Amino acid sequence: MITLHGMSWSGNCYKLQLLMAQLGRAYDWQEIDITRGENLSPEFLALNDRGKVPVLQLEDGRIMAESNAILHYLAQGSELLPSDPWAQAKTLQWMFFEQYSHEPYIAVSRFVMRFLPADHPRQQQLAVLKPFGEEALAAMERHLGRLSWFGGHCYTIADIALFAYTHVADEGGFELDRYPRVLDWLRRVAAQPGFVPMRGSPASAVAKQLHPVTDPHSS
Amino acid sequence: MITLHGMSWSGNCYKLQLLMAQLGRAYDWQEIDITRGENLSPEFLALNDRGKVPVLQLEDGRIMAESNAILHYLAQGSELLPSDPWAQAKTLQWMFFEQYSHEPYIAVSRFVMRFLPADHPRQQQLAVLKPFGEEALAAMERHLGRLSWFGGHCYTIADIALFAYTHVADEGGFELDRYPRVLDWLRRVAAQPGFVPMRGSPASAVAKQLHPVTDPHSS
Repeated sequence: MITLHGMSWSGNCYKLQLLMAQLGRAYDWQEIDITRGENLSPEFLALNDRGKVPVLQLEDGRIMAESNAILHYLAQGSELLPSDPWAQAKTLQWMFFEQYSHEPYIAVSRFVMRFLPADHPRQQQLAVLKPFGEEALAAMERHLGRLSWFGGHCYTIADIALFAYTHVADEGGFELDRYPRVLDWLRRVAAQPGFVPMRGSPASAVAKQLHPVTDPHSS
Repeated sequence: MITLHGMSWSGNCYKLQLLMAQLGRAYDWQEIDITRGENLSPEFLALNDRGKVPVLQLEDGRIMAESNAILHYLAQGSELLPSDPWAQAKTLQWMFFEQYSHEPYIAVSRFVMRFLPADHPRQQQLAVLKPFGEEALAAMERHLGRLSWFGGHCYTIADIALFAYTHVADEGGFELDRYPRVLDWLRRVAAQPGFVPMRGSPASAVAKQLHPVTDPHSS
């Protein structure tokens, strides 16, 4: 059985939990709490010398980092990764967008607002991050005016990658009501077979609307 | 014939020129000078509403953005994109690393140092970017102590993606002499069949060493 090492309230790690649930595949989960420095332990650094989560570990010991690369590997052969070269690359286009133009603004804003003290110097970053995060959400809104899903006509790992931090963007100060197509898309993702909510994210009003049933794993 | 829209001195655009040369494939090149705002023209925004280069345009009009997604599409079926699922995802791992942990520091430092006036306010960014860029180069150096190439045992589009800005990192204030395995890898990339230098990059001492023959396209 594969092992996934990650922190449950990290969107990058949640991506993998969501994919595995939708694939109906079992896995071992190793919780790595980066707020307690567990990612810098000798054991974890032996897995990933960059000290970053998530990490995929195969039974034979092989290791992979980068959440979106892990999604690509785990989704191989399923409908969640198109086999057609154009469709697969379009899926990757939005996954690169997510890592370059979305996560560094929306996920970082969420981290600063939700997990750092109100008087932390990094709170000053928020004003700088805000317009770039809004730009990312606006690009998603425009895309959803043309196509139903980010990979094209079907739900794919591009949707999983983008859902992870978009559905808790309000925790980073982003008002999703301004992006009605994005809100509708979030609801359609949460209605996909096998969907599981992110653990430990009760602060997000949007996330609560998407999965109103109490999550037994929430912390 | 496909059309590539880009700016020749952009590393993200050069990636595609290098791949196409190594595949021996012809293409139309449309130069888009973002310093003159050509990426914000109505014609270009009709191709990519985010105003970003590079853009791939197929003969039938289909459009793709994100340099690394375009590399993935164009390299399909060639040795430069491994078909084995693990090897392909490991290749993508380093391409996501490039966009998340490398390009935002090394490419941005190069842009600020080389293309903005010495008294531009963004010069203050350099001190912030520097340690992250060094961390990326150090991660590459460690990897090259384990494997010869970024995708594994063969030259792949992960090497092309990382070469683009690494080989001109000195234009962003990074001393590559500190990373001897990276320097050796740069030389091995530049020795690959079909290699073409980046146009218009004579400021880089490292790039000059890699391709000492005068580039007739240099500007």
